[in-house]
Amino acid sequence: MNILVTNDDGIGAAGIKALAEALTELGTVTVVAPDRERSAAGHSLTLHSPLRVFELRDRWFAVDGTPTDCVNMGIHSLLEAPPDLVVSGINHGGNMGDDITYSGTVAAAMEANLMGIPALAVSLATFGPTEHFPDAAKVAVQVARMLIQQGLPADTFLNLNVPNLPFSEIKAPLITRQGKRSFVGKIVDKTDPRGRKYYWIGSEEPSFLDDEGTDFNAVGKGHSSLTPLHLDLTNHRAMEALKQWQIA
Amino acid sequence: MNILVTNDDGIGAAGIKALAEALTELGTVTVVAPDRERSAAGHSLTLHSPLRVFELRDRWFAVDGTPTDCVNMGIHSLLEAPPDLVVSGINHGGNMGDDITYSGTVAAAMEANLMGIPALAVSLATFGPTEHFPDAAKVAVQVARMLIQQGLPADTFLNLNVPNLPFSEIKAPLITRQGKRSFVGKIVDKTDPRGRKYYWIGSEEPSFLDDEGTDFNAVGKGHSSLTPLHLDLTNHRAMEALKQWQIA
Amino acid sequence: MNILVTNDDGIGAAGIKALAEALTELGTVTVVAPDRERSAAGHSLTLHSPLRVFELRDRWFAVDGTPTDCVNMGIHSLLEAPPDLVVSGINHGGNMGDDITYSGTVAAAMEANLMGIPALAVSLATFGPTEHFPDAAKVAVQVARMLIQQGLPADTFLNLNVPNLPFSEIKAPLITRQGKRSFVGKIVDKTDPRGRKYYWIGSEEPSFLDDEGTDFNAVGKGHSSLTPLHLDLTNHRAMEALKQWQIA
Amino acid sequence: MNILVTNDDGIGAAGIKALAEALTELGTVTVVAPDRERSAAGHSLTLHSPLRVFELRDRWFAVDGTPTDCVNMGIHSLLEAPPDLVVSGINHGGNMGDDITYSGTVAAAMEANLMGIPALAVSLATFGPTEHFPDAAKVAVQVARMLIQQGLPADTFLNLNVPNLPFSEIKAPLITRQGKRSFVGKIVDKTDPRGRKYYWIGSEEPSFLDDEGTDFNAVGKGHSSLTPLHLDLTNHRAMEALKQWQIA
Repeated sequence: MNILVTNDDGIGAAGIKALAEALTELGTVTVVAPDRERSAAGHSLTLHSPLRVFELRDRWFAVDGTPTDCVNMGIHSLLEAPPDLVVSGINHGGNMGDDITYSGTVAAAMEANLMGIPALAVSLATFGPTEHFPDAAKVAVQVARMLIQQGLPADTFLNLNVPNLPFSEIKAPLITRQGKRSFVGKIVDKTDPRGRKYYWIGSEEPSFLDDEGTDFNAVGKGHSSLTPLHLDLTNHRAMEALKQWQIA
Repeated sequence: MNILVTNDDGIGAAGIKALAEALTELGTVTVVAPDRERSAAGHSLTLHSPLRVFELRDRWFAVDGTPTDCVNMGIHSLLEAPPDLVVSGINHGGNMGDDITYSGTVAAAMEANLMGIPALAVSLATFGPTEHFPDAAKVAVQVARMLIQQGLPADTFLNLNVPNLPFSEIKAPLITRQGKRSFVGKIVDKTDPRGRKYYWIGSEEPSFLDDEGTDFNAVGKGHSSLTPLHLDLTNHRAMEALKQWQIA
Repeated sequence: MNILVTNDDGIGAAGIKALAEALTELGTVTVVAPDRERSAAGHSLTLHSPLRVFELRDRWFAVDGTPTDCVNMGIHSLLEAPPDLVVSGINHGGNMGDDITYSGTVAAAMEANLMGIPALAVSLATFGPTEHFPDAAKVAVQVARMLIQQGLPADTFLNLNVPNLPFSEIKAPLITRQGKRSFVGKIVDKTDPRGRKYYWIGSEEPSFLDDEGTDFNAVGKGHSSLTPLHLDLTNHRAMEALKQWQIA
Repeated sequence: MNILVTNDDGIGAAGIKALAEALTELGTVTVVAPDRERSAAGHSLTLHSPLRVFELRDRWFAVDGTPTDCVNMGIHSLLEAPPDLVVSGINHGGNMGDDITYSGTVAAAMEANLMGIPALAVSLATFGPTEHFPDAAKVAVQVARMLIQQGLPADTFLNLNVPNLPFSEIKAPLITRQGKRSFVGKIVDKTDPRGRKYYWIGSEEPSFLDDEGTDFNAVGKGHSSLTPLHLDLTNHRAMEALKQWQIA
């Protein structure tokens, strides 16, 4: 069992260390991760410039690109053979609801899925300081073991969010759907030391609609949340309405 | 009617010029777009560093960020009031099938949708040189006019792909679902003038499964393709299978 | 007479426009300049990544690199033959005293000198808003004309600073030496919207030692300042003292 | 004795490790260095965007900026008090002749000098693989010790180049002047996987004029080379010639 591990917090983050260590229980782990933090990278590929790879130590490669780049580099270049599983994380902060579309952690799993490799994204649902990465890593290993044993449903990759608790207090995983965030964006504008204006996109702890059956709801109750995702963004229900449009 | 226009090819691209000009027919157009090409940016937000804005001319703003950043900047800072419509494009190259998850053009419309603003992404389905941006812009105006008249179904934004043809030869839009790409990735590795290795992620004209009812299929037959998208990545069909898993 | 023009404020800046226009009086002008502001770039070369070139219009090329990169690209790739003269500027802000070691504008002239091409850096000595770029451009043309007629002394390139005044009020150029700045650095530290600390290097209007014969002194009196520079950083006077050291 | 150590090869490079370890013999060492390679950065300051600092371990700080930024951050923000000495290096590759104007290693020492702190740049004169960083570090310690004992001449900072040899074979330091390079630039142009052209500035092992008394000459003979530098780029000999010009 060959496992490729990546993240979007950067190769020096505590979350990827805990994850890579825990997964050695299941197979040979190779880490290919961004050399710097690339949070909110989305499913972005670096096509306009080249990438560099730095082998930090045995089977730990830093890449000056995005999580999606790292999965590409791992599968097509750095690993001897395509991995049996790609695991991304453990992200510092939950990736739930609409916010998953921004997530570099989820995008890495999406990229693996596009290439036909089973994939799992793992996030720890807190934005504060935490010591619970090893606890979340244990949950990730449990889910990964099932994924290997059972296989994934067609066209599916997994999004796991774990509450920020000691392992013994984390309740059994619930299978959830993606929730909805109540979005409040903001832009901060300031002036640099040379008197020029700059802008900073704010991000806050997301607030969400606490609907039963969603990722937010499960984590809020102390459960891990496991959501099956796919790449199909089509709103099938909306197709009929659009077919009534008389365009042109 | 206030319309925000953005893209991912950069504010100097021919596609955004054609689009912005054509949309003046429907209302007041403000352009907020990346100062450099940001193809394959995905739904990426710049959270780690600030953004700069350059007003190039009246109502044309360049931002040193991603398309998603531009929509944020436009809505939360540069426009006097939230726009009635966000239109992103015209991308040079189709955004169809699984590839839309990489697309900065589609992500900009996704961002607008997250903020509750009706949104349309527009792409011209060719990667070769083209003179047909004004033709595609006419189709975009037709679709935008319908969108304004009819309103969008709930939780929906639109993805329009136009074949690379003169306006008179473009067949009526078909309402489609997102197709599937047959993905063949590759990495090119080379050596720089100082003898150090670098890697370049290859991208090629996508090949696809030509299924009836998909975006690829419609464009291949000379139709415009209009796909309703949403933000929900949940694979609802896979939930039952996962519920059988005995995790832990 | 073929003239290569570059700057460090970026190809869209008012100063390079005034300079390029004025120099057409002396020959054929080709502009190769950074696509974004690259102030304080120093004599930096982009060796670790590739460069892109965008031809904005006839003989105006934007490069996604430093002023030094632009001179390289112009001389070795974009121009049909090496230029007879490289002129860099007009910088918005003086480049005088020790500060010239940071200056991308001066570095561009330095690069041309390294390649054996006569070179002149031009700066307008104000950090406030200005309408006097065309006035400074006239002075630049006068100096460039003399440079062409007389030739430069061996191993020399020129650094011209022009006071921020209407042409009729600018006093005749004085030949000066590089002055000394009284340096007060500072770092501003702030917190980003996600609560993480960042730092910003401050820069302020330089204060300087007002020694007779220096660039600062000349400009302070309303003269243009013309300083012959070379690439030799050796402090020849200090060699004797060091020779007394008993190292090891 | 508080010593600030930086470099331009990045905080993970072998050269800075050897240097920082060796200098602990003389005092308390704090490392503030770029998180990525920043070769050929010249004397460039990051003014347009903010900087981030990452404390990797006790007294080792990575900064996402240039060597010049690192010296600024160290002196004005990260150290409790201004250091007694700044040492930059050990650069992988010599910094001699005109090339020192490109050098981030030399620029870091220049920045310290501007702020009134004694400074020494150290380079190992080979571009091939090497195991002799600890040998060069011993020479650096010898020079630093003399610098501390004797003090530097006014307006002077030091540029040390060490031949790529075992310590016992390195000949006594010679006090040298900056040599002259015979410059042959080149640009490589290639095509990326999407068919777009890109350019790469070539760099080659420098060839030089082997004049007696220069840095190149000393190192070529197996000596360390120690050159006193200053910030004055004025070509004083050229001033008389220019004073004959009748400008305007």
